[in-house]
Amino acid sequence: MATELVPGNTLITASPQEGRELALKMARLVIKATQPDGAVREQLRPEYAQDADSLISIAHVVAVEFATIATANDYWR
Amino acid sequence: MATELVPGNTLITASPQEGRELALKMARLVIKATQPDGAVREQLRPEYAQDADSLISIAHVVAVEFATIATANDYWR
Amino acid sequence: MATELVPGNTLITASPQEGRELALKMARLVIKATQPDGAVREQLRPEYAQDADSLISIAHVVAVEFATIATANDYWR
Amino acid sequence: MATELVPGNTLITASPQEGRELALKMARLVIKATQPDGAVREQLRPEYAQDADSLISIAHVVAVEFATIATANDYWR
Amino acid sequence: MATELVPGNTLITASPQEGRELALKMARLVIKATQPDGAVREQLRPEYAQDADSLISIAHVVAVEFATIATANDYWR
Amino acid sequence: MATELVPGNTLITASPQEGRELALKMARLVIKATQPDGAVREQLRPEYAQDADSLISIAHVVAVEFATIATANDYWR
Repeated sequence: MATELVPGNTLITASPQEGRELALKMARLVIKATQPDGAVREQLRPEYAQDADSLISIAHVVAVEFATIATANDYWR
Repeated sequence: MATELVPGNTLITASPQEGRELALKMARLVIKATQPDGAVREQLRPEYAQDADSLISIAHVVAVEFATIATANDYWR
Repeated sequence: MATELVPGNTLITASPQEGRELALKMARLVIKATQPDGAVREQLRPEYAQDADSLISIAHVVAVEFATIATANDYWR
Repeated sequence: MATELVPGNTLITASPQEGRELALKMARLVIKATQPDGAVREQLRPEYAQDADSLISIAHVVAVEFATIATANDYWR
Repeated sequence: MATELVPGNTLITASPQEGRELALKMARLVIKATQPDGAVREQLRPEYAQDADSLISIAHVVAVEFATIATANDYWR
Repeated sequence: MATELVPGNTLITASPQEGRELALKMARLVIKATQPDGAVREQLRPEYAQDADSLISIAHVVAVEFATIATANDYWR
């Protein structure tokens, strides 16, 4: 698998904001690995970006990814 | 990504109540980052605010975000 | 946000039973914060209280909230 | 809230088997607290017991409850 | 409850592979406890084994069970 | 159960990238164990790879698997 799945190949970030951005990117990269065709992904965008339940599901995934990243960074304390 | 994802860029809050408010805001900011068009988000509001399953799903996301925030704050013990 | 989200503003409870009650209340208060109209919430009640999948989803949310509360209380050991 | 939510009001059990039984009971008691009418719950039983996705969702909830109980018991190590 | 819910009544396994097998078995045993009729369960098999979303949901449950088992075994480090 | 469920039978990986790849593989191997018929799995591929909600659900499962793997590797710190 040559696809990049973790930008920078590290979970360490400078701040919660950057940790959150990493969580979003990591979730998107799994979707990209599962559906590598960019045209298909682009077609799906309105499907989820205009659907409340899809948006809530995305928020759920980001919350789970962020939990891992936050622990890795000892919560930036 | 210029969008603010963590208000104040910290997970530390003064109390469980404020931690809970942060959890709600962080979940909303991911949705805003995914659907930046405020008019679309406003249109979706009745869809989820009047649907029991959507409300339960939102509560689920907040619970996951809060778990991270509570750990970051050592449960305000 | 003036809405109460954590009754008593603490995660510490005297027993697992009270921790469980707090988990239920915290989940409900997020739903109340998202749908502040009590009449709408009352209308939704039969929708989820008579639907097996909604009841299972509620149980899921309570399980996640309780995990946090149980940790905060060191599992009442 | 007078309903019993944690049988024996403790998360400590003698074995993984008993921890698992407690997880099942705790999940059921939340559903009972949300839908106190036993006749309605009985009506819902075939709905979820003969639906693959409902059964999988129940297994999910039990897994989450069990994670908490297992931690409380230091994994019965 | 006489049904076996944890094979061997322990979360300790010799390897990640065996931990994974235990996670699968534990998830199945909860479903068996909820739907004890083997004929019904057999009928449901094609329903979930040929449905992408059901298969993903099963994978989710196994992931949650495995997290607990992995912690119990200190990740077989 | 002879099916391989954990490639290499270890959760230890050299980097977050490899941990992420392992999370993807472990999720897929559970699906393979539940639906061993490769032809059926191949038929299901367009069903989930072109459905936004299925892709989000897959991302969710990978996030949960990755949390376990990241802990096993002490977050590659």
